[in-house]
Amino acid sequence: MTAIRVPALNERVIARVRSRQDSLTKPRGSLGRLEDLASRLAAITGRLDPPLKNRVLFLLAGDHGVAAEGVSAYPTEVTAQMVRNFRNGGAAANVLARQLGVRVEVADFGVGQGTRSFTEGPAMGVSQARRAIRRGRELVRGQRIAGLDVVLTGEMGIGNSTSAAALTCALTGVQPKLAVGRGTGVGEAGLRRKRAVVRRGLEVNRESLHDPLQVLAALGGFEIAGLVGVILEGARLRKPVLLDGFIASAAALVAVQLNPESAGCLIAAHRSAERGHRLVLEALGLKPLLDLEMRLGEGTGALLALPLLEASIRLLNEMATFEEAAVANRLADG
Amino acid sequence: MTAIRVPALNERVIARVRSRQDSLTKPRGSLGRLEDLASRLAAITGRLDPPLKNRVLFLLAGDHGVAAEGVSAYPTEVTAQMVRNFRNGGAAANVLARQLGVRVEVADFGVGQGTRSFTEGPAMGVSQARRAIRRGRELVRGQRIAGLDVVLTGEMGIGNSTSAAALTCALTGVQPKLAVGRGTGVGEAGLRRKRAVVRRGLEVNRESLHDPLQVLAALGGFEIAGLVGVILEGARLRKPVLLDGFIASAAALVAVQLNPESAGCLIAAHRSAERGHRLVLEALGLKPLLDLEMRLGEGTGALLALPLLEASIRLLNEMATFEEAAVANRLADG
Repeated sequence: MTAIRVPALNERVIARVRSRQDSLTKPRGSLGRLEDLASRLAAITGRLDPPLKNRVLFLLAGDHGVAAEGVSAYPTEVTAQMVRNFRNGGAAANVLARQLGVRVEVADFGVGQGTRSFTEGPAMGVSQARRAIRRGRELVRGQRIAGLDVVLTGEMGIGNSTSAAALTCALTGVQPKLAVGRGTGVGEAGLRRKRAVVRRGLEVNRESLHDPLQVLAALGGFEIAGLVGVILEGARLRKPVLLDGFIASAAALVAVQLNPESAGCLIAAHRSAERGHRLVLEALGLKPLLDLEMRLGEGTGALLALPLLEASIRLLNEMATFEEAAVANRLADG
Repeated sequence: MTAIRVPALNERVIARVRSRQDSLTKPRGSLGRLEDLASRLAAITGRLDPPLKNRVLFLLAGDHGVAAEGVSAYPTEVTAQMVRNFRNGGAAANVLARQLGVRVEVADFGVGQGTRSFTEGPAMGVSQARRAIRRGRELVRGQRIAGLDVVLTGEMGIGNSTSAAALTCALTGVQPKLAVGRGTGVGEAGLRRKRAVVRRGLEVNRESLHDPLQVLAALGGFEIAGLVGVILEGARLRKPVLLDGFIASAAALVAVQLNPESAGCLIAAHRSAERGHRLVLEALGLKPLLDLEMRLGEGTGALLALPLLEASIRLLNEMATFEEAAVANRLADG
């Protein structure tokens, strides 16, 4: 894969954001994390008033060979059925996208023609992983014509929380017990199977877990590889990239290991209830904006964080300063 | 005060919400707290599709005699200056209200003509407290003509986090050390003064802390008493009442002690960074939707939670069911 050059964050603009924030009619720092969020958005885009109007949810779907091992509460055909549901506007992600004015780009990354089970060798070849990354990047570029200000990540794929757990273990070194959760809601037996499957995948593929691209090919899914491309291209274009839950964040972990500069553009929208998500967010050094005990994926968490991005930038730009409003500032000894 | 009859929650509608939620194309329970939120909104309003279009922020401002004791980082005249800022649309609450389509009703509850310092006796008379509650109720009724679906609570008043801390201590029995925080941002000396002032207020007024109305009169502010009225009337009309931060929640504590049935209509929008807020939320049995380390008041936290209310109701009503979308449901042993 040709190296993707991601521009560094614009650190100079942060000082301008801080100085303006401290001049606004509110106690210093009282907007809490919204102040940090505005700084981050300014640093990503290089401006105090970044446009946030054109937001696109990249909703990538793919099937997983590992689903045949009984790791999900739902049958494999649900991936294809949900893709149809996305196209008909009936899924949770569609409802939220309509509410929040977000375009949804649904993309088939191996629905019905999924990966091999990683319990029997690599899920895909390295060249397939490269191709999926490239396609993810192309999706992002394709949306620039209609306008693209914010990149939202979403996914669907029966079995993909198993793949994300395996990726998390391989990339952070944590044990399967800590990274494997109930996904769509498997019971105790399913959870044990899922853990065993991840352990087997790590064992079978241990010779090819030396670099992030190999890890992605060995344990990933096509939609996860596609999201790696979406994230890398979003970062290359200096767009804020809103991470959804566990699976999108596992893709971000791969992206950041492939290109550490891309980390600066990531914003963690929420903390999923799925067990491994906390670990992945810690590894990425990200603190999520929301924690609503959701575990659906599809980009639903990313969508819900959008009004907070907008709020942080509007507050920075539209609030009156102490001087403009003739409001007395803090007392000297306050 | 004549008793305010608040209708009980409609518990029957909750079963209908749960049954519909379980039929939608998502793993059961995977929308986490949004599912509980939709249930709550349905129980308050008695319908699965409550209107949420007309939202009004009741932004009550008042001055506090206790501000003269050096408990705030800002001079008293800031209350009046900020009221002008609210009317000119330059404050944080205005910016968020514009973003989220919320009407703002700014009301003067003793700006410039505030309460007495509660370190020298009751802050106001019981009849004054009753009058302020009545005026708060009238404000809510006055907004029904233009339409009122959601009640948002907001306040402004230099010194009012000291009043809220004193109310919290009197109504929950916690010690001042735990309820007093930095408010707008006082330093160590200010924090010590603030604690001493609250202890003195509790001591001086100890003979009149026997019922919630007396407590409110002794330690409250006019804008806090007004918010008690806003909350009680919102509950009486079976509207969702979105609590903002520490001060609005202290008003809710008074309202719930005056009328326990009103508790069912309360939704905690966020957890403020102000120290005592956690205690008040626990006493109310409420779990906040957001935790963004904000500590501004004005209704800013309440405003930011609105898109979540909307999302929860849209998801319930607009998502396709498994049957409609021809998506396979869970496996029997999943």
